[in-house]
Amino acid sequence: MFSGLSAFPITPMNETGVDEAAFGRLVRRLAAAGVDSIGALGSTGCYPYLTRAERARAAQLAVEYADGVPVMVGIGALRTRDVLALAEDAQKAGASAVLLAPVSYHSLQAEEVYGLYENVTRNLSIPLCVYDNPGTTRFNFSDELHGRIAQLPNIGSIKIPGVPADPAAAAERVARLRALIPASVTLGVSGDWFGAAGMNAGCEAWYSVIGGLFPRTTLAIARAAQAGHADAATQLSERLRPYWDLIARHGGSLRITATALDILGLVQHPCLPLPLNALGGADRAELAKLIETLELA
Amino acid sequence: MFSGLSAFPITPMNETGVDEAAFGRLVRRLAAAGVDSIGALGSTGCYPYLTRAERARAAQLAVEYADGVPVMVGIGALRTRDVLALAEDAQKAGASAVLLAPVSYHSLQAEEVYGLYENVTRNLSIPLCVYDNPGTTRFNFSDELHGRIAQLPNIGSIKIPGVPADPAAAAERVARLRALIPASVTLGVSGDWFGAAGMNAGCEAWYSVIGGLFPRTTLAIARAAQAGHADAATQLSERLRPYWDLIARHGGSLRITATALDILGLVQHPCLPLPLNALGGADRAELAKLIETLELA
Repeated sequence: MFSGLSAFPITPMNETGVDEAAFGRLVRRLAAAGVDSIGALGSTGCYPYLTRAERARAAQLAVEYADGVPVMVGIGALRTRDVLALAEDAQKAGASAVLLAPVSYHSLQAEEVYGLYENVTRNLSIPLCVYDNPGTTRFNFSDELHGRIAQLPNIGSIKIPGVPADPAAAAERVARLRALIPASVTLGVSGDWFGAAGMNAGCEAWYSVIGGLFPRTTLAIARAAQAGHADAATQLSERLRPYWDLIARHGGSLRITATALDILGLVQHPCLPLPLNALGGADRAELAKLIETLELA
Repeated sequence: MFSGLSAFPITPMNETGVDEAAFGRLVRRLAAAGVDSIGALGSTGCYPYLTRAERARAAQLAVEYADGVPVMVGIGALRTRDVLALAEDAQKAGASAVLLAPVSYHSLQAEEVYGLYENVTRNLSIPLCVYDNPGTTRFNFSDELHGRIAQLPNIGSIKIPGVPADPAAAAERVARLRALIPASVTLGVSGDWFGAAGMNAGCEAWYSVIGGLFPRTTLAIARAAQAGHADAATQLSERLRPYWDLIARHGGSLRITATALDILGLVQHPCLPLPLNALGGADRAELAKLIETLELA
């Protein structure tokens, strides 16, 4: 479950609800491309913007359209109470795993985060992936805390935010964390511009937003890294440098992903929840050009 | 509505729901102490942790127990869709104003925040206070954006996160922002350790967490500042220095406030939503000692 390319699609939505048909098509497209797993309702899937009922329904749709490809479902919420309910819904929907970030409004302390994972794993019958994403949660995991949480029952993987660009430093970073966690717990890299570097450094998985958008391009990188062809993986990733630069300029990949899917005709505009806006005008035109130039479509 | 001491109580809750009786008592205590307004469901009131129904009910209770003191109700949420629904609920509950922070999971951009306030103020029949709280929202308002939003209909006040410690710098900061906003829009300082400095610098209001906990102590500071006795206000605030230091050490006032209310016997433990925890052990004992030493009870 927690190795290879895990592709994270957006959940297309507008002010009236989730576009279920478009979401189903996105999931089916990923399964058909041959990704190893699908991450529904991740950050790019805008999980915290949806109601419990909308999330339960999206989880059901993801499992249905994944056509046998394992689905991991995001269950993050501000309150433990709500996380427990969402875990129950994800399991009922047939999810193979859940993904949990320590979502916060008031910044969380380490013991509170440990307590959250302790509470949730105790009530799970499927594995959980720890979602370390300081950019959205504002919580910084220490390696020591990762090590303690990884000892809890049902922990299957840790989604780390990235690795250093230097290959030796990346390998050292992965080795340092791995020394603190059980052998049964895999590491997965996030932040797509780190994908090749992370897999080359020994991460078993790539939890990928671009994998949910351009699955074939992303699979080529992942398969090269998995086959031990580190240089090839790096080159394939470097070819996308203009795309990584665009993400950096826009402060993240969500709006770009939504706009790209619209350009590809896979979703209807708007597909993000207000107040979030997709790109418009010159930014959108630049992205369309890039998709063409890099042959991403 | 938007001047003097606005006291922000917590919303006592546990895993089964809001402790409505305790919340009612907290609100009544503030009204009896003579605060100028009550801020229900602010950050300290843990608004984002509650369901829409829980928030509607808390708003009703606040108005009921405030006994004529104007109540401002927090309507922040990740989605514009939900903010609009919460604004409707607050108005139905009899709130005199609403408080809106640009709550985020994915970081917001300036135009998205402007769009949020434009959308919400268009649908309001009571005034709105702009809640500038980068610590919880991770959004940094520019003065230029504050100026644009303040021109929208129904904007009544801006709750700013603090002012510089130096009185001249504080006065300059307040004057700079005031030059960009209509005369009808007041400025209110937040961050209690800035309260005296902010009012001395010309803020008409103090949006105060400690005001929701120790209303008489806080009112003494506010009334001194309002009467133009800047030195007296500063001295009264400086007397609380050990308390401000404690808040800084704990990275915010929420857990301290919850623990203090428990020590005072005004709420039952636990009163925060998991995964948040109140203080325990030595930290709690230190707070109890401080409450006694500073005669805060």
